[in-house]
Amino acid sequence: MLRCSSRLLSPSLRRSNHTMIPLTPDSLNPAILKVEYAVRGELAIKSEEYRDQLKAGKSLPFKKVISSNIGNPQQKGLDQPPITFTRQVAALMEWPELATLAPDAFPKDVIARAKELRDEIGSIGAYSHSQGVPFIRKNVAKFIEGESNTLLAATAGSLSAARDGHPADPNHVFLTGGASAGVSLLISMLITPPTSGILIPIPQYPLYTATLAQYKGVPLPYNLDESDGWATSIESIEAAIAKSRKDGITPKALVIINPGNPTGALLDEPQLNSPIPLVSFHSISKGVSGECGRRGGYFELTNFSPEVIALIYKMVSIGLCPSVSGQIGVDSMVRPPQPNDESYPLWKKETDTIHAALAQRTTLMAERLNKLPGVSCVDSPGALYLYPQIHLPAQAMDAAKQAGKEPDAFYALALLDETGICVVPGSGFGQEEGTYHYRLTCLCPGVEEYVGALETFHLGFVKKYGGL
Amino acid sequence: MLRCSSRLLSPSLRRSNHTMIPLTPDSLNPAILKVEYAVRGELAIKSEEYRDQLKAGKSLPFKKVISSNIGNPQQKGLDQPPITFTRQVAALMEWPELATLAPDAFPKDVIARAKELRDEIGSIGAYSHSQGVPFIRKNVAKFIEGESNTLLAATAGSLSAARDGHPADPNHVFLTGGASAGVSLLISMLITPPTSGILIPIPQYPLYTATLAQYKGVPLPYNLDESDGWATSIESIEAAIAKSRKDGITPKALVIINPGNPTGALLDEPQLNSPIPLVSFHSISKGVSGECGRRGGYFELTNFSPEVIALIYKMVSIGLCPSVSGQIGVDSMVRPPQPNDESYPLWKKETDTIHAALAQRTTLMAERLNKLPGVSCVDSPGALYLYPQIHLPAQAMDAAKQAGKEPDAFYALALLDETGICVVPGSGFGQEEGTYHYRLTCLCPGVEEYVGALETFHLGFVKKYGGL
Repeated sequence: MLRCSSRLLSPSLRRSNHTMIPLTPDSLNPAILKVEYAVRGELAIKSEEYRDQLKAGKSLPFKKVISSNIGNPQQKGLDQPPITFTRQVAALMEWPELATLAPDAFPKDVIARAKELRDEIGSIGAYSHSQGVPFIRKNVAKFIEGESNTLLAATAGSLSAARDGHPADPNHVFLTGGASAGVSLLISMLITPPTSGILIPIPQYPLYTATLAQYKGVPLPYNLDESDGWATSIESIEAAIAKSRKDGITPKALVIINPGNPTGALLDEPQLNSPIPLVSFHSISKGVSGECGRRGGYFELTNFSPEVIALIYKMVSIGLCPSVSGQIGVDSMVRPPQPNDESYPLWKKETDTIHAALAQRTTLMAERLNKLPGVSCVDSPGALYLYPQIHLPAQAMDAAKQAGKEPDAFYALALLDETGICVVPGSGFGQEEGTYHYRLTCLCPGVEEYVGALETFHLGFVKKYGGL
Repeated sequence: MLRCSSRLLSPSLRRSNHTMIPLTPDSLNPAILKVEYAVRGELAIKSEEYRDQLKAGKSLPFKKVISSNIGNPQQKGLDQPPITFTRQVAALMEWPELATLAPDAFPKDVIARAKELRDEIGSIGAYSHSQGVPFIRKNVAKFIEGESNTLLAATAGSLSAARDGHPADPNHVFLTGGASAGVSLLISMLITPPTSGILIPIPQYPLYTATLAQYKGVPLPYNLDESDGWATSIESIEAAIAKSRKDGITPKALVIINPGNPTGALLDEPQLNSPIPLVSFHSISKGVSGECGRRGGYFELTNFSPEVIALIYKMVSIGLCPSVSGQIGVDSMVRPPQPNDESYPLWKKETDTIHAALAQRTTLMAERLNKLPGVSCVDSPGALYLYPQIHLPAQAMDAAKQAGKEPDAFYALALLDETGICVVPGSGFGQEEGTYHYRLTCLCPGVEEYVGALETFHLGFVKKYGGL
C-alpha cells in the first residue's frame, strides 16, 4: 500500500529545462498575506514556546502556562469534563461490540440510543450525506422548533423558546465541522470581490475578518456599546450601512454573535418581521458540551430559495461530509437525556456543575477585575469569556510604541512573560479607537490563584510604568 | 443556554428603510456558479431519490440502490468492516473509564495505546495544536521515513521504502480533516487569479477542478495515456506547460494522483533530483482503513521555506484544528499493531481479507468488463476504482444529444434507471475528446451479481440502440 495518494509538485522535473520560480510568500495568493488571526497568533505561539521550555526543565518566572487565549473547555489543566452521556454514546458508535461485551458498563438509554443511531447511520467510518445524516438533521430541526426538549427549554429560560412555532426544515439544516466551517463557507459564497462587504460587530471573533481577508471581502464594522453592556444598536448598524454606501461597498450580510465573542454579552431577542434570509449557526464546542476537538456544529437556513440552497449543497459536497463523530456530538447536544432516562441524574449533575462553575468564575473575575485601577469589565452572563478594558500608564504607551506593539499586545506579552497566562489582545478582535482590551477565558480552575496572578501583575505593571 | 451562537442576516431590520437585495444565485460570488463536482451531482442525487422511493415502498426495476459512485468502503450494504484495533483505541479515547469498567474487553496493547495517547493528548474534546497533535505528527514522520513500521514496508513492496533515508520533520507535517481539506487549502494559497493555474492529470478526481473554479484558478490538463495503463508521461506534462505559457497562465503546481483516481493506476517511483517544493497528501479514507467518515489525513511539506510554512500554519489556525478523532485515526493507520502485539493476529486477518477481496473483485470486474463489446478497461492494481471506456452505438450518441446529456452521462442514467447501480460518468473526471468512460467502485459484495447486472444492462443498451 502506497503512503501517498496524491502530490503537489512545483513543475520542475528531472529532464525539464523550464525555469522554476521559487515558492516564496510573494508567489502566493496575496490575499493570504493580509489574513490575520490573533487567537493563535504571536501570543499563542510564544506561550507554546514557554510550554516547551518548561517541559525541557528551563526555569521561568512561572510553573505552568495557562492558555486563557482559547475557549477550549476540555484542555489539559482545566477542569471541565466531557458529558458522560455523550462519550458513552460515542464509544458505542466507535465499537458497537461493546454493547455485547460490556453491557453493564452502559446505561440502558445509552445502549438504546447507540442502537438507534447505528440503525440510521451504519458505520461512523462511512461518509454520510454531505449535508449530514438525515436523522440527525431531523433532530436538530426539532431542537430548533423547541418541541422535543422541554427540559432544555426550561433550563435555558425564555430565549430557548424563541423559535417555538417557527417550524424548522431538516432539509434546510447543514451539519458542519464546527460552526467556523459553516461561517467560512457562507462568506466565500456571498463575497464577490472587490465591492462586497459584511457588517460585523466590533469587537468580533476574528474568524470574520480573517475569512473576509481571504476572500477579498470588505469588513463593515458596527460598534457594540461597551457603556451599555456591549449592546447592539440599530443606529450603529445603520451608520455602518450608510458608510458602506458612501464607500461603494455592497453589504451582503449582517453578522450577530450571541453570546458575544469576545464580549460574552447576551442580546435581547431580535424582532425580525420581514422574511429576510437568515442563517443561524450553532456548535458543540462551547457551553456545557465543550467538545471543541470533535468539530461539530450546524447552520440552519430560513427564507432561502431552493436555487441558493442547491448551490450551498454543491459546495459542501466537495468536502464530502462533516465528521460523523462530530455529527453524533451534535445529536447528543440536541437530544440530551430526559428526566425518565437512566442517564439523566448524572447528566443533570454534570451540566449543573459546569453551569455553576462558569457562572461563579465569571462573576468573581469580573468583580475583581473591576476593582483594579484602570480596569473596567462588563460582566458576561452567558459566555466563557471576559473582555476587560485596560487604561495604561502614559509611560507604558510610550514603551509599547518603541517596541512596535499595540498597547494591549504589549500588556499581554508582559503578562505572559511574568505569569505564564496567555490572553488575546483586544487589537485581535477590534475595539473603538483609543481603547484597549484583552480577552480571557473563564475556564481556569483555581480561580483565586488565577485572578490573584492577574491582579499582582496589573498592579506591578502600572507601578513599573509610573502609575495612571 | 442559547441555541444559536451567531447569525448571518440580510441587512434589513424592522425599523430600517434600506432596500434589500434578494438573495439569488446572481447575487452570490460568481465563481461558485462555475464549480462542478460530479461525484455527488446529478446521478448521485437521482440515486438518493430512488433510495427514498424504495424505502417508501415504491416498485422499481431493482430492489436496492448500489452507490458505486463514491469510494465509501464502510457504507451500509457493502462488506468492508472497520479495523477492530482502530475502533477499540477510538472507543477508549471517547470514554477512558472503559479501561477500568471493562478491562477484559480490550487487548492489552490497545489499553496501553489509549493510555499513551491520553497522556499526550488529554481529552479528544479539546482543540489540539492547529497542525495536529505533536505526538501524532512525530508518528507520521516516522511512518514516512519508514523506520517504525517494517511490517508495512514489507507488505507494501518496494514503494513503501521509497522515502527511507529521507528524513521527515514532524514540524512539516499537517494533520487535516481528510486529504481534501489539505488540497483545498494549498490550492487557495497558490492561486492568484486570473493567471495562476495548476497542472492536473486527465482524468482527475474533480476536487481539483472544483477547487480551481472556486478560487478562479486555471486548470492546466495533461493527459494520462490510457493505451499504456494510464501512465503519466513527462512529454504530456511538458506539452501542458508549453500551452500554459502560450495562454499567459503561470503554472503554480503539478498534481500527481497515485494510485490514480478515477483510474486506479499505479505510478513508477518518480525520480526527483532537484529540491523542488513537494507536498505529499495521505488519508485514512480509503484502502484497508476505509474510515471516510472520520475525516482524517495529513500532508507533508518538503523543501518549503519557513516563511511559507508559517503562512500555511496561519491559515490552518483559523479552522482551529482538525477533528482529534480523525487525527487518532491517522495515528492508528501509521502505527498499526506489530507482530508481538496481542491485537496483531486479528489485525493481520482483517487487513489480509480486505486486501484479498479488493484484489479479487478488481481483477474479476476488469476481466468481465473487457469481454463486453465496446468496453475496454485498464485493470487497476492499487485502488478501489475502475474506469472503463465505453464505445456507444451511433443511435445512443444521437439519443444522448437529443436529451441534452453527455453520452457517458446518458449511459450512466440509463444504468441507474434500470439496475439501481449509480456510477460517475467520465465527463465528471475529464477524458480525451471523443472518448467516454465511467468510474465505478470495486467495493460491492456479491460481485458476480453486480457484474452480471452491468453486463446485462450493457448488452441490452447496445442492442436497444442498434448495435455497435
